[in-house]
Amino acid sequence: MMRVAVLGTGLIGTSVALALRERGASVWLADTDQEAARLAAHLGAGELLPEDAGPASWVPADVAVIAVPPSAVADTLAAAQARALAACYTDVASVKQLPVEQARARGCDMASYVPGHPLAGREKHGPAAARADLFLGRTWALCPEPETSEQAVAAVTALAAGCGAVPLRIAAAAHDRWVALVSHAPHLVAAAMAARLESAPPQALDLAGQGLRDVTRIAAGDIALWTQILAANAGPVAEVLAAVAADLAEAARMLSDGDPKSVATLLDQGQAGVARIPGKHGGEPREFTVVQVVIPDQPGELTRLFDAAGQAGVNIEDVRIEHSPGLPVGVAELSVRPAEAGPLLDALEAGGWPVRR
Amino acid sequence: MMRVAVLGTGLIGTSVALALRERGASVWLADTDQEAARLAAHLGAGELLPEDAGPASWVPADVAVIAVPPSAVADTLAAAQARALAACYTDVASVKQLPVEQARARGCDMASYVPGHPLAGREKHGPAAARADLFLGRTWALCPEPETSEQAVAAVTALAAGCGAVPLRIAAAAHDRWVALVSHAPHLVAAAMAARLESAPPQALDLAGQGLRDVTRIAAGDIALWTQILAANAGPVAEVLAAVAADLAEAARMLSDGDPKSVATLLDQGQAGVARIPGKHGGEPREFTVVQVVIPDQPGELTRLFDAAGQAGVNIEDVRIEHSPGLPVGVAELSVRPAEAGPLLDALEAGGWPVRR
Repeated sequence: MMRVAVLGTGLIGTSVALALRERGASVWLADTDQEAARLAAHLGAGELLPEDAGPASWVPADVAVIAVPPSAVADTLAAAQARALAACYTDVASVKQLPVEQARARGCDMASYVPGHPLAGREKHGPAAARADLFLGRTWALCPEPETSEQAVAAVTALAAGCGAVPLRIAAAAHDRWVALVSHAPHLVAAAMAARLESAPPQALDLAGQGLRDVTRIAAGDIALWTQILAANAGPVAEVLAAVAADLAEAARMLSDGDPKSVATLLDQGQAGVARIPGKHGGEPREFTVVQVVIPDQPGELTRLFDAAGQAGVNIEDVRIEHSPGLPVGVAELSVRPAEAGPLLDALEAGGWPVRR
Repeated sequence: MMRVAVLGTGLIGTSVALALRERGASVWLADTDQEAARLAAHLGAGELLPEDAGPASWVPADVAVIAVPPSAVADTLAAAQARALAACYTDVASVKQLPVEQARARGCDMASYVPGHPLAGREKHGPAAARADLFLGRTWALCPEPETSEQAVAAVTALAAGCGAVPLRIAAAAHDRWVALVSHAPHLVAAAMAARLESAPPQALDLAGQGLRDVTRIAAGDIALWTQILAANAGPVAEVLAAVAADLAEAARMLSDGDPKSVATLLDQGQAGVARIPGKHGGEPREFTVVQVVIPDQPGELTRLFDAAGQAGVNIEDVRIEHSPGLPVGVAELSVRPAEAGPLLDALEAGGWPVRR
C-alpha cells in the first residue's frame, strides 16, 4: 500500500490524491491555502498532513507529489526535503527545465527528485474541480536528471501508472520544447483568436458555432498560472508563435491579393498536422459504431432503451444525448463495437424506437 | 405538408432533407453526382427528383434548397428557376455577398430567392455524414435582399424552423463580416496551429492532450470547399487574420524579451472573449448538475443504473461515459437538474454504486 504526501491541493494535486485513494493508497494533504487542503480532504482525497510532520514525528511517505505552480516547485521541494517528508519527490509543473535549475541552485537533493508532468487538465481549477479519472490513459512525462536514482524513478513511475496514466521518459529540454508546440503555443493561439471576440457586437456572436467554441475553449484557463508557464518556457513558445504568426500574416496578405492558392497549402498542412495527433486516450483508437435513436425526454425512457440493449447482450460503450430546447425529444448516440450494431438496431426497432440504419 | 426540392445532397443538403422528412415533408433530391443523390435517397432523405422535372411535368415545390459550394449557387439557382422547380429558393453557402452578386448578374429572379446559411457542420462531408439533428438549436441566417418577397422569406423561415434551427435575419454584408470573425478566420487559425505539427517528431505528439485536439479539430475539414469559402470572403477574413497574426507576433517578441506582462493581457482578452460565446444551443444555457458514478464495463450495468434513476423519478438529461483502456470499469457522468442531484445520489448509493458527493 503506497503512502503519498500531496503538497498543493489544486486541480492536479487533488486529482492525483483521489486517483491514488481509489487504488487504496494512504494520502496526506497540505496546501499553503489551508481552506483548499481542508476541501480536498472533505472530498475524500486523504487526510491533512500534520503541521509538525518532520524527522522526529513522521515516517517518510514513499512519494511526495509537489503540485504547485512552476516557480514555487524548488522552494516547496527544499522545504519538504528538509522535513524528510518522503523517500522521493516529484512535481507536476508544465515546464521542467526551470524547476530543475532552481532546485539544483537551491541545493536540493537531486537523487530523490524525479521531475514530472501529467498531460491532463481542465479549464476549471481548484480542488472542487478535481477528478479521480483525470489521468486515465493520458501521458505522464518523467524527466529524470543524471543524478536521479533509478529507485526514485521506479517509485514515481508506479505512482503515475497507479493514476491510470502512461509514463513517458523524456529529457527535460525535449519536454519543454515539445510542450511548447503541443500545449503552450496552442493556448496563446486560442487566446489570440478569442481576444478578437471581446469587442464584437452581439449579432456576431449569434453566428458562433461549435467550431469557434472548440478553437477557443482552452483560453478560459487560469491566467496567472498560464502567464507563469509561458514565461518559464518563453524561448520555445516564442519560436512556435512566431511561425504561426508568419503563416497567418502571409495568409492574410494572399487573401487580400486575391491569391487563395497559398491558403489551400496552409489548409493542406493543417489537415496533415491534425491527422498526426493520436486518439483521445493515446495509443490505438478503439473503433466504435454509432447508432442514433430518437428518445422522448422523460424519466424511464433511457432505462427502457438500455434494458432492450442489455437483453440483446449488447454493451453500450458510450452514450451522448443531444436535446433541443423546447422539443420533447432528444437524440441518443450509442457507441458499440461494430459487430454489435446490427443486434442493437434490431432490438431498438423491436422496442418501437425510430432508428436510422 | 411542405414540398421541398434539395439540389445538392452533400452533408448539409442531405441533413436538411432528413430533418424535414422527420417533420413529414415530401422531399425530392438531385445532385450533379448521381451516386450522391442515390445514396441520400437510400438513407431515407427523399426520392430522386425526376430528370425531366420542368414546367410541363412538375408541380413546383414550396422551396428549393440549393446546397452546393458558394461559387455554384448562382448557376444552380438560374437553372432551377428556368425549370420552375419551386415557388421560392434558398441556398446554404457560408458566404452570402458572392452568390447574391452572381445571381443578380446572371439575371436570376431575386424576389423568390432568400439567401441563407445554417450555422452547422461537421468535419466529415458527403451524404453519409448527414444527420437529421444537425441544425437543432443552431442559428440559421437569412439574408433577404431589398427585392426578396416577404412570402419567400416566410416560407424559408418556416423551413429553417422545421429543421429545428433558430432563424436570424441579417444583411448579407453583416453576415459575411461576422462569419469571417466567428467561423472563417478561426478555421485558418486552427490550420496554422495544426500545420506546425506536420514535421514534429512522434515524441512531441505523445505529449498532445485534449486542448490541442480541440484547438485544431476543425482544420480537418474539406479543403477545396474551405479554400472557396475563404476566397469568397477574403477581405473580412484577411482583416481578422492580420490582427491575430499581429497579436501573436507581439506575444512572441515579448516572450523573447522576457516581458510576459503583455502575454497576460492577451490571455485576459482571450478569457473575456470566450465568456461572450453563447452556450451550445444558443440562448440561455441550461444549468445541469453532473453526478459521477463508477460502473463496471459489462452489459446490463447501465440498465440497472438508469432503472434506479427512473424509479427515483429522476430524468437524466445527458450521459457521458469515459472508459480507460484495459480497465474493467468506466466513469459515467450523469447530468440532471440541480434539484434532482440529491435524489439521484441517494438512489445510486442505495443501489451499491460508488458515487462522489
